[in-house]
Amino acid sequence: MNDSPAIAEAVAAQRDFAAGLFDDLRALSIDEPGVTRDPYGEGENKAHRQFALVARECGFEVSTDFAANSFATLPGRDRAAPRIVIGSHLDSVPHGGNFDGAAGVVAGLTAMRALRSLGVEATCDLTTMAIRAEESMWFRVSYLGSRAALGTLPTSALDATRVDTGRTLADQMRECGADPECVARGDASLAPESVAAYAELHIEQAPSLLVDGLPMAVCTAVPGNFRYPNARVIGEYNHVGLPRRFRRDAVTGAVDVASYLDDVWQANEAAGRPMAVTIGQFFTDPEQHSLTHVPGEVRFSLDVRCYDEAQLASLEADLLDALAEIEARRGVRIDLGPRTGVPVGTMAPELIAALTESARRQDVPSILLGSPGSHDAAAFAAAGVPTAMILLRNANGSHNPDEAMEIDDFMAGTTVLTDWLFNAVSDAASLR
Amino acid sequence: MNDSPAIAEAVAAQRDFAAGLFDDLRALSIDEPGVTRDPYGEGENKAHRQFALVARECGFEVSTDFAANSFATLPGRDRAAPRIVIGSHLDSVPHGGNFDGAAGVVAGLTAMRALRSLGVEATCDLTTMAIRAEESMWFRVSYLGSRAALGTLPTSALDATRVDTGRTLADQMRECGADPECVARGDASLAPESVAAYAELHIEQAPSLLVDGLPMAVCTAVPGNFRYPNARVIGEYNHVGLPRRFRRDAVTGAVDVASYLDDVWQANEAAGRPMAVTIGQFFTDPEQHSLTHVPGEVRFSLDVRCYDEAQLASLEADLLDALAEIEARRGVRIDLGPRTGVPVGTMAPELIAALTESARRQDVPSILLGSPGSHDAAAFAAAGVPTAMILLRNANGSHNPDEAMEIDDFMAGTTVLTDWLFNAVSDAASLR
Repeated sequence: MNDSPAIAEAVAAQRDFAAGLFDDLRALSIDEPGVTRDPYGEGENKAHRQFALVARECGFEVSTDFAANSFATLPGRDRAAPRIVIGSHLDSVPHGGNFDGAAGVVAGLTAMRALRSLGVEATCDLTTMAIRAEESMWFRVSYLGSRAALGTLPTSALDATRVDTGRTLADQMRECGADPECVARGDASLAPESVAAYAELHIEQAPSLLVDGLPMAVCTAVPGNFRYPNARVIGEYNHVGLPRRFRRDAVTGAVDVASYLDDVWQANEAAGRPMAVTIGQFFTDPEQHSLTHVPGEVRFSLDVRCYDEAQLASLEADLLDALAEIEARRGVRIDLGPRTGVPVGTMAPELIAALTESARRQDVPSILLGSPGSHDAAAFAAAGVPTAMILLRNANGSHNPDEAMEIDDFMAGTTVLTDWLFNAVSDAASLR
Repeated sequence: MNDSPAIAEAVAAQRDFAAGLFDDLRALSIDEPGVTRDPYGEGENKAHRQFALVARECGFEVSTDFAANSFATLPGRDRAAPRIVIGSHLDSVPHGGNFDGAAGVVAGLTAMRALRSLGVEATCDLTTMAIRAEESMWFRVSYLGSRAALGTLPTSALDATRVDTGRTLADQMRECGADPECVARGDASLAPESVAAYAELHIEQAPSLLVDGLPMAVCTAVPGNFRYPNARVIGEYNHVGLPRRFRRDAVTGAVDVASYLDDVWQANEAAGRPMAVTIGQFFTDPEQHSLTHVPGEVRFSLDVRCYDEAQLASLEADLLDALAEIEARRGVRIDLGPRTGVPVGTMAPELIAALTESARRQDVPSILLGSPGSHDAAAFAAAGVPTAMILLRNANGSHNPDEAMEIDDFMAGTTVLTDWLFNAVSDAASLR
């Protein structure tokens, strides 16, 4: 029997619900231009209260955990069986867009409503999870809410301070009714072994789907990265007329680092190994700015990301070799400063295959695509949970007020998600 | 008859005079670390008062002009004949060294004292000129005092403001008893045709002589330059995960500009065409600094200098072509902003030959060397005055308090200068 048309119809019937929830979330977090839902702060709290209100109205079981993540559950036959979790985050960057994060949460509720309307009796619980504090620009730490739930957040993260308030994560959590002591103890509210699968729908944070004319993609991996937020090149300030052989020019040294990385990127792309290099800041000392001085110091930040752990390790090892060569050639010293990084979030091959099959069944054009951005899905994958993502076409990038997802594309992606769930919940245990 | 030993002895007898004058200048402008002689301000005024006091004690004719430059003159037989001027500037950068500029003024007085002690009867007047406001970091305009005297300073310079006081050159001049109206009228206190030759002794602003173990060099040219103090690369801010094909990365664009110029420099040096490129400032917008943003804007400054006008013109034309290519490749826009520049100051070949011959006669090891820095000599050369420079060995660069010239090297250079003057003043008219 072909269930596809019925599933599509059941999802389509939820269009007003989804659109209305997006409108409500926008209205309560508007901060022109765009929206602000500050993590472990009032912006995010409002969104979580709205999530709980709507989920209760839907008749789902509503709960929160020690990290103030919110959950809406459609109970299955076996309440003790590993559950399927659909989730994403509700926080945003300052003056960000309404869909980055929220789309995945709305998709979860929408899919659960559609499945219930179809009279599906799930083998296991289905849970939509509204995750806290995903946007790393606030606390400079990634995946706070999801890693807290999974029991994988390092205790040191509690001391991270929010860039705007200067207050620690622990303090901000307490204000939202969360309990940082549980994080310190390594508790898990969502033990990895209790999750049969985690799926996240998220807008694409690049225009690949827009340019290729496709509504969605099945994600192959969330990039891992290594980061040096505060690197320095130290040379020697000197007179503008200093001949080349005597110079220890910090700008030229830093330019060599940037050029090297750009060449590496170009070569990797050409060889079919996608990656990205971002030097978000690069600056000489304003106190020393002069048209007629050879600059003695440059500070820069570095983010290098790709979809393969071995490639990532080799990029970093090669970079360190290149820096030593640049130091010798330019007579400068390069201090990379503190390092951070996250591993590659590899999506589960069997889930990639199942989502691809659902897209085919539902006639939704789709490709396989590496995620440009980082997502909570990577925290689930790192914890050993079988993980999948659907990426949605999105104009104007993300992390800005002009972010623009079409509701048609959202409904198409949610239809594929629901089709997959429909088939998965008949025997969720087999997913592991 | 060989006059060389007598000339050397006469100069050597002035050692205490020269060392004492250096000490006096340092004492009255000390501003730890280093000295500050702010142009058209109290620091420079004190040095000019000391110059006048000492020159009068020496018995020289002392005068000042409408630009508050100071002059000490040893009269010649024909007072109306074109004179020989020995000069340099008395201002300094903030917390600079004591010798940058002052060495040339002390050398002029020392040489005139030595010549008088030898009973030389000069054919023309010999004048030591203490020049105002050479250091361009104060008013962002080059050669103020020398060009005012020569009648070649553009009227617009009067509106330039001093970086620390914010007051105009015109106002600062009036406070020092100078008359900016004369500049506005294009008056000349030292008409180019009234100068038979201009010679300047100056510390080398690079360690070439130090490294080569030589006390002095005869200068071949003062570099001309083109400058873009406020250039910008405009791209597009975007998410850190943006794939390569969509990026309009301002840092990568600016890095390409810097790399291109460094390659050009390397190729020119290898081909025996010395030049220099300085990007003194290079900075992303601090308001937009983020580890996770592709940067949308970079500002930078540019100073490109060399010793040949045709080379300089070709460097700039080639740069403009390269920028267009970088704009197309990186999807950025490059706005160079306002341009300034000075022509190459070519030293007179007959004076280079005469000084080289004097060094040989006086047994002072010497080479030919392009000046690393800019000097008033370039303003005299640009006005058509036969011009020469002696560069002195100097440790630790200039424009900093650690600048270090040895008095032995100063005496060696002044001996060569005096030897040349001794021979020149017997028939100064033939120098033109």
